[in-house]
Amino acid sequence: MVQAAAAHNTIEKTLKNTLLFRGCDQSFMQKLCEQGMVRRYQKGSLILFKDDHAERFYIITAGWVKLFRETIDGVQAVVDVLTTGDVFGEMPIFSDDGKHIHNAEAAEATETISLPSHLLAEEIKKNPSLSMNMMQFMAHKQKVQEQQIEHLAIQSAPQRIGCFLLRLITAEKRQGRNELSVSLPYDKTLIAAKLGMQPETFSRALKKLRESTDIDVDGSIIHIRDLNKLSGFSCAACSAEFPCKA
Amino acid sequence: MVQAAAAHNTIEKTLKNTLLFRGCDQSFMQKLCEQGMVRRYQKGSLILFKDDHAERFYIITAGWVKLFRETIDGVQAVVDVLTTGDVFGEMPIFSDDGKHIHNAEAAEATETISLPSHLLAEEIKKNPSLSMNMMQFMAHKQKVQEQQIEHLAIQSAPQRIGCFLLRLITAEKRQGRNELSVSLPYDKTLIAAKLGMQPETFSRALKKLRESTDIDVDGSIIHIRDLNKLSGFSCAACSAEFPCKA
Repeated sequence: MVQAAAAHNTIEKTLKNTLLFRGCDQSFMQKLCEQGMVRRYQKGSLILFKDDHAERFYIITAGWVKLFRETIDGVQAVVDVLTTGDVFGEMPIFSDDGKHIHNAEAAEATETISLPSHLLAEEIKKNPSLSMNMMQFMAHKQKVQEQQIEHLAIQSAPQRIGCFLLRLITAEKRQGRNELSVSLPYDKTLIAAKLGMQPETFSRALKKLRESTDIDVDGSIIHIRDLNKLSGFSCAACSAEFPCKA
Repeated sequence: MVQAAAAHNTIEKTLKNTLLFRGCDQSFMQKLCEQGMVRRYQKGSLILFKDDHAERFYIITAGWVKLFRETIDGVQAVVDVLTTGDVFGEMPIFSDDGKHIHNAEAAEATETISLPSHLLAEEIKKNPSLSMNMMQFMAHKQKVQEQQIEHLAIQSAPQRIGCFLLRLITAEKRQGRNELSVSLPYDKTLIAAKLGMQPETFSRALKKLRESTDIDVDGSIIHIRDLNKLSGFSCAACSAEFPCKA
């Protein structure tokens, strides 16, 4: 009972904080809340499967989720790694076949809220404010993906790692400082895959980045001794300036 | 006068064939048609600029358009290459700053119809059928971009070229044949950039593809002697099977 009440609170709070649902009316939020399910996944558990019919979509409330596709040869292509507040699995409501376009796996211990896709699909048809939120959400995603394509196409491997590190630095953490430390949020193997590299390439590129920008690598802690040097090196091959928005 | 009438016909016909406007009412289509502008661009002309306020969006009626961004170092990152029927420059109506997120340049002699962005933005707010079309359009784009990310991340350079060639083969052209020819639609330099390669890498990769799959390169004509061999080689590192949909 306590557990159910706790889950209800988590769902209510999360839905209230999810931009996608901003301005939605009480009865819809209530329905979502009632049919929401909180679930925890151990690292490595699969959350949804590519080509499955999409019954539910997900909001992450804790942890990291890897979205990936598998090639015919059995190699994993990581298309995104998401975290708290991110939404996934919602796209199929707009496609003819209604199937998921990637697999999703817990990259660390993860908690999600899942919600029925049909509720979203029905409400979007009659609620212009929800469909406007959805279009803004999709436009933002498209912008982020376009930058990802840009980076994969022209940044060198060391620059891509530098860019990844820079994105871990929040405005709060920066506060005019030029020296600071960041923790890698998940395995180096997954970081490599997210950046489109083989693990060996990642190791070599990290070494090169260290030599070029004076960072120190201590396990999963990276000491950035000269932030300007790191951003100068990494952002030279990017169309946005540091600190970047997307 | 004849010219204006011809332009009107082009616009009317194009709008009718554009999926985005399917089911839109006559008065909106009429307004778009009246304010539509047909324009021709020579190869190399710029159509729109990144960071400019987006006044109009575009439908291509002939030719090829390169969407690109420039890094701080002045290198071009080609994020997409579009052709007849494709729409571009519409995204800023969903962003806070209303600015274009890339440059667009005519990659070959090109004709476009441009339409006022504010008409689209206003109609989307009140027409659920148009906003549903837009969401389907964006979802499809997201799927295509995701596959592009997948390919950049894990296909080898020769595989990426093979994949590009396979996508030039229409179902009509294939018709059960295992040997056929395709023409490259635009410069090899642009193909290289679209596939995230330097021109030198492209040449080396094309040579390797030739050796691995027995294709013949004769200027801009590629003779595919064994389609199964080419698709076997290229599609092994892809999550979709040949012939692919996206």
